[in-house]
Amino acid sequence: MAAGKLYQHGTLGGLMAGLFEGTLSIHELLKKGDQGIGTVDSLDGELIVLDGAAFQAKGDGTITALKGEEKVPYAAVASFEPAFQLTIKEKTAADAVKQQIQENMSSTNVFQTVKVTGTFSYVRVRAVEKQEKPYPRLVEAARTQPEFEAEKIKGTIIGFYTPELFQGVAAAGFHLHFLSDDQQFGGHLLDFTLDEGQVSLQMIETVEQHFPVSNATFMGNDIDYANLQEEIDEAEK
Amino acid sequence: MAAGKLYQHGTLGGLMAGLFEGTLSIHELLKKGDQGIGTVDSLDGELIVLDGAAFQAKGDGTITALKGEEKVPYAAVASFEPAFQLTIKEKTAADAVKQQIQENMSSTNVFQTVKVTGTFSYVRVRAVEKQEKPYPRLVEAARTQPEFEAEKIKGTIIGFYTPELFQGVAAAGFHLHFLSDDQQFGGHLLDFTLDEGQVSLQMIETVEQHFPVSNATFMGNDIDYANLQEEIDEAEK
Repeated sequence: MAAGKLYQHGTLGGLMAGLFEGTLSIHELLKKGDQGIGTVDSLDGELIVLDGAAFQAKGDGTITALKGEEKVPYAAVASFEPAFQLTIKEKTAADAVKQQIQENMSSTNVFQTVKVTGTFSYVRVRAVEKQEKPYPRLVEAARTQPEFEAEKIKGTIIGFYTPELFQGVAAAGFHLHFLSDDQQFGGHLLDFTLDEGQVSLQMIETVEQHFPVSNATFMGNDIDYANLQEEIDEAEK
Repeated sequence: MAAGKLYQHGTLGGLMAGLFEGTLSIHELLKKGDQGIGTVDSLDGELIVLDGAAFQAKGDGTITALKGEEKVPYAAVASFEPAFQLTIKEKTAADAVKQQIQENMSSTNVFQTVKVTGTFSYVRVRAVEKQEKPYPRLVEAARTQPEFEAEKIKGTIIGFYTPELFQGVAAAGFHLHFLSDDQQFGGHLLDFTLDEGQVSLQMIETVEQHFPVSNATFMGNDIDYANLQEEIDEAEK
């Protein structure tokens, strides 16, 4: 099985602590991978990277195709070459899909890129809303985030499985975003029912963790990671 | 300040859980950096990489120059270009040296390569002893590890500062090894008094985390990270 490489800019821990300033351009990010997730400057929505194109699912429910100059405070992308594929032919709830994915992963000790394309009878997403400075902690911003639902929709789930040891660096377990085929609906995936679709997986051999070393807020801040585990559980599940 | 790149093979968390099998050759490791630390297959001593050469400080107190075929389960190396230097001209205890280093680091939110060359009036190191399968957890192996002391010795401290968020992936804070100039004394640094010397630092912009994906024990194991924080505190400080 060919192993892949994951590139992460910033950390989930930094994002949870309120580091929402964009520090890497979409243009630079897309050089590092063609599939992935993240957020946009000022926590302005959910980032979805699919097949080399970047989309922003905003708090008002709209989707914007990004042009390249926009900046991200946190994002993870991989150059995806599916190494394992699984077809699901019957209606399957989110937990059961995740269980099938996990059973077919090469290991739970490495990161994995996860992609599910198909028809969904139900999808529920959230999209964080743009924040103003001074930025709150993510858990506070996430408490008022809008949620959106769709039924009978074709689309793609994209994201990563993160091994337990890397909780805080990223979100341990599955961290998945969604974008509909018509690019009109998407966000951070909260729940879904898959009607039929294809799961693709690739394990990650190398994670390239990049820090925003030119950002004074990141470099100078005494980052408060208190309650990080609990805040991730509340905001990212 | 020119920022560097850190390459880490395996994780401290995996090592703490008893993953002691060597999974990357010294030859391959040295392609990734010329300064660093780690351990050797079967937890057979402390690895010290200085100026592109690798040394093994074994549990019997001897130092072996490694040839390249030897394998490591865990190591971190950087291509080091000092971006900050500080000369210490008077006798200074370990804690005060570390405090001076920390005050001069560009940030505590990024990894930093730390090197101190000089004359030491006192150095205390430990060197873990080779383990047999089935491997214990590192904290158990470390409870019986031999310690060694030297006085009036010239040598080099090499290692890394790891930001708090990466505790478990590596050892948060300073993780330092020592090698004497005559290559006869070294190991995991426990304590020292510097008479005079030069501190060199370089911040790390990118960490390349490599996983031993060809190792069945790593891939198949349900790694037990219980008490990881406490075990690192006991075994790595």
